Amino acid sequence: MTNRFWRLDAHPHGNDFASAFSLQNEDVPTAGPGQVVIKNDYLSMDAGTRMWITPRTDGYQPPLPLGSKMVGLCLGRITQSQAEGFAVGDLVRCFGQWADYAVVSPAESGLMKLDEDVADVRQHFGALGMNAWTAWAGLVEVAKIQPGETVLISAAAGATGSLACQIARNLGCKVIGIAGGPDKCRFLVEELGVDLAIDYKSDDVEAELAKVEGGINAYFDNVGGPILDAVLPNMAHYGRIALCGLVATYDKDNATAGPARFDQILMRRLTISGFFIPDFLERGTDFLPQLRKWLDEGKLVMHFDETKGLEHTLDAYSRMLTGRNIGKVVVDVRT
Amino acid sequence: MTNRFWRLDAHPHGNDFASAFSLQNEDVPTAGPGQVVIKNDYLSMDAGTRMWITPRTDGYQPPLPLGSKMVGLCLGRITQSQAEGFAVGDLVRCFGQWADYAVVSPAESGLMKLDEDVADVRQHFGALGMNAWTAWAGLVEVAKIQPGETVLISAAAGATGSLACQIARNLGCKVIGIAGGPDKCRFLVEELGVDLAIDYKSDDVEAELAKVEGGINAYFDNVGGPILDAVLPNMAHYGRIALCGLVATYDKDNATAGPARFDQILMRRLTISGFFIPDFLERGTDFLPQLRKWLDEGKLVMHFDETKGLEHTLDAYSRMLTGRNIGKVVVDVRT
Repeated sequence: MTNRFWRLDAHPHGNDFASAFSLQNEDVPTAGPGQVVIKNDYLSMDAGTRMWITPRTDGYQPPLPLGSKMVGLCLGRITQSQAEGFAVGDLVRCFGQWADYAVVSPAESGLMKLDEDVADVRQHFGALGMNAWTAWAGLVEVAKIQPGETVLISAAAGATGSLACQIARNLGCKVIGIAGGPDKCRFLVEELGVDLAIDYKSDDVEAELAKVEGGINAYFDNVGGPILDAVLPNMAHYGRIALCGLVATYDKDNATAGPARFDQILMRRLTISGFFIPDFLERGTDFLPQLRKWLDEGKLVMHFDETKGLEHTLDAYSRMLTGRNIGKVVVDVRT
Repeated sequence: MTNRFWRLDAHPHGNDFASAFSLQNEDVPTAGPGQVVIKNDYLSMDAGTRMWITPRTDGYQPPLPLGSKMVGLCLGRITQSQAEGFAVGDLVRCFGQWADYAVVSPAESGLMKLDEDVADVRQHFGALGMNAWTAWAGLVEVAKIQPGETVLISAAAGATGSLACQIARNLGCKVIGIAGGPDKCRFLVEELGVDLAIDYKSDDVEAELAKVEGGINAYFDNVGGPILDAVLPNMAHYGRIALCGLVATYDKDNATAGPARFDQILMRRLTISGFFIPDFLERGTDFLPQLRKWLDEGKLVMHFDETKGLEHTLDAYSRMLTGRNIGKVVVDVRT
């Protein structure tokens, strides 16, 4: 009984992950006191994890020590339990390891039992997953979107972005999505029902946004960088920006310059708030009923970009970080 | 009967105002329908006006056309009135002109009758003035400061800053002020009762702030620029930044780079909000009773930096914009 796992050997440069990670073998771990062992079925590829593998200490959590098993969201069934409230066979999700088997303590990993009656179990990484919680919290609690407002979403064809587009649409907003390339933009319009898709690779984003009547009331930002600069002068007065991610900067070893149009925060009396889904981990019961209802009604769809085999995890990770995916990138690690 | 006024002839470069303004003469203006004429007693020098005299159209109001009388806050008595609710002899404050006589319409100038029973009439530009409203709104309504929190204020020896220090102190916060030079820092500690003064000209601001136990809960920012960069990594998680001014950038003809540590907004889940006192012009009755009470109790003091004579207005303006003042810069234009 062998457990394969991805070990962080070095801090990656840019998106060169092959030189930073290696696939290792060990005996299947046993659960210590208070721990559970999970046989992983799926791994979730998330941009936020890119920050844990830099040496920077000013990220939102300490860097993962070199030599560690890579940490990421896992979904599977418990095979051993020494933790109260969790039993062998439970379907669970947590911050575990990129491995055949994850070993975690419930509290620090956010271990959560999942509904068994969801047709596609991957939806626990999709319409019911952390990306959906992020989209909901960012739009409703941080950006405080109201029906009839114009809501802009960057990285709109990604996992969080595509859910944010649909949640904003379901809540009665006019939705504009920014994504790279014609396929993604077609996906936004045809599958997600956004009102306008802007292709940042071929369109002049600032010029397109300048045409939006009344300006942008709320911006759900996943990327930062030059797109934020194009957005700032096109925000409506008193607009709100929910800063969910800064993908444009994650592969930099040092802090990069902030938005050149930062002054517009003052000029337009904007509010920009950083938020981070682990702050909302206890809030699942608030978010899930509405998300589940929309999922069952077909009002929240998720496109999965699936890679098969733990050994191909780095390909999936790179796809996600370089934006070659549409929707949610998962790795099927069932063997 | 002559009215002297300052005319904006050209957009100033940096703080060279002598080449941009000229003192002109005309007959004393008469009040048109709905207007009043005011004999100015004092002019208020305010950093925000620096933005109106650039050619930039992305400021918080349109640039003042070249050839116009310079617009700024005035305090004086009405000498002619064709406006309902305002009578000859009323003591008033408004956005008028840098002149012996201002001519304004009540609504667009924010014309406001003032209490006659304030011992030093200049306090209508001080503890009871727009700077005080700005400080109150920024701390209480934007940054939502709470007793016991650590509140940081930049340009702390200026008009708005010195009032913000005292309001935060009066509301039970620990107060840290940043100012330039030993005289200002002594003023902060000895006259305003701040807990810590940091001299940005001689101290390492970032290193000093790093020593603050628990981090900065709220930052009242008047300047932007490098000081904001020093503050961002020292904010407490969930800290709030009230962005009141960006003096560091006002004399630039183009947008300048945003804070290099912008990423900390995400990492620390900060909220940064721009605000602008004209948004609060109707709120005087909410702010004034508490400010007046503190003034009468000696809990809100204002140091005035006074220049005598309309003809010396540009000296006063330059003093204020280059930070050579302590407290509120006013020009006594009584003749």
